Amino acid sequence: MGRIALLLVAVAALAGVVTYMPPASGQVDKEAAPIFVKEIPPGYRDWRLISVAHEEGNLNDIRAILGNDVAIKAYREGKLPFPDGTIIARIAWSYVPSEENNKVFGRPQSFVAGSPTNVQFMIKDSTKYAAAATGGWGFAQFDKDGKPGDEAFMKTCFPCHAQEKARDLVFTRYAP
Amino acid sequence: MGRIALLLVAVAALAGVVTYMPPASGQVDKEAAPIFVKEIPPGYRDWRLISVAHEEGNLNDIRAILGNDVAIKAYREGKLPFPDGTIIARIAWSYVPSEENNKVFGRPQSFVAGSPTNVQFMIKDSTKYAAAATGGWGFAQFDKDGKPGDEAFMKTCFPCHAQEKARDLVFTRYAP
Repeated sequence: MGRIALLLVAVAALAGVVTYMPPASGQVDKEAAPIFVKEIPPGYRDWRLISVAHEEGNLNDIRAILGNDVAIKAYREGKLPFPDGTIIARIAWSYVPSEENNKVFGRPQSFVAGSPTNVQFMIKDSTKYAAAATGGWGFAQFDKDGKPGDEAFMKTCFPCHAQEKARDLVFTRYAP
Repeated sequence: MGRIALLLVAVAALAGVVTYMPPASGQVDKEAAPIFVKEIPPGYRDWRLISVAHEEGNLNDIRAILGNDVAIKAYREGKLPFPDGTIIARIAWSYVPSEENNKVFGRPQSFVAGSPTNVQFMIKDSTKYAAAATGGWGFAQFDKDGKPGDEAFMKTCFPCHAQEKARDLVFTRYAP
């Protein structure tokens, strides 16, 4: 490992980005920032449905969780941990009452997807994202304009997901 | 039209099933029960997502609305009325708080899909389902065991959907 690479590791470690020291042969750029996925996986809006959810509180969204073919297959087979190639997409929209639906139903009961808020992804690649650092997952968030989340925010993904260790860091269960 | 067919039309009309008298060449069995779709469209769980919603009240469900390829294309192109071949699927699950998610988040905020409640479909076929009777749509509901809704229940679909005439009887808008 060259001096510049070592320096980068040291800086990243001080910044709290690295929680895992790669072996001497490790590639520092891959290990140092395992949680920063900068590209939106193409075609995700066409993926199949895993489940749906509503988050109250600050989020106040309604969401769909979609999976690519690898993800859907693993879910349906109950396969854990998820294999490399798995991508899980979480699309969220603002949670809004539907006045037009309520008018037809004759009472306030209907809540629908409003404007998009953001999209998140978990990408399983145990080579690219160190197993010891993030369980082999890369995390990503993009706002409604496609802008990725900043580093401070992205660092909050893993500690929360890590609490779902028994389900390979994934919160969402498959909805039959 | 034979005497038996005429009799059937008369009986159906008295029962309130027929709201449209077919032309003399019309096939009575198709016109008399336009809203009863008895077969679950195959593969619907693999269709692409249109949107998500939560219904309070007696339903108390969280739901995903999926579309077959014809439906998704029409939605994305803003095409109205929906073309023949469109099938829209609405899958609903009981709306349940997620104790396991809330434990991680440190507060009650997460609601997820519980057990399946039922699945509904709207199938556009202007030949099979008379335009004047149901706007060319066939309606269907199947409970979690795949059992279709009874006739009394199925007759409630159209009058409610008919109030969304400006959107070809479809409540759900596409979530981008």
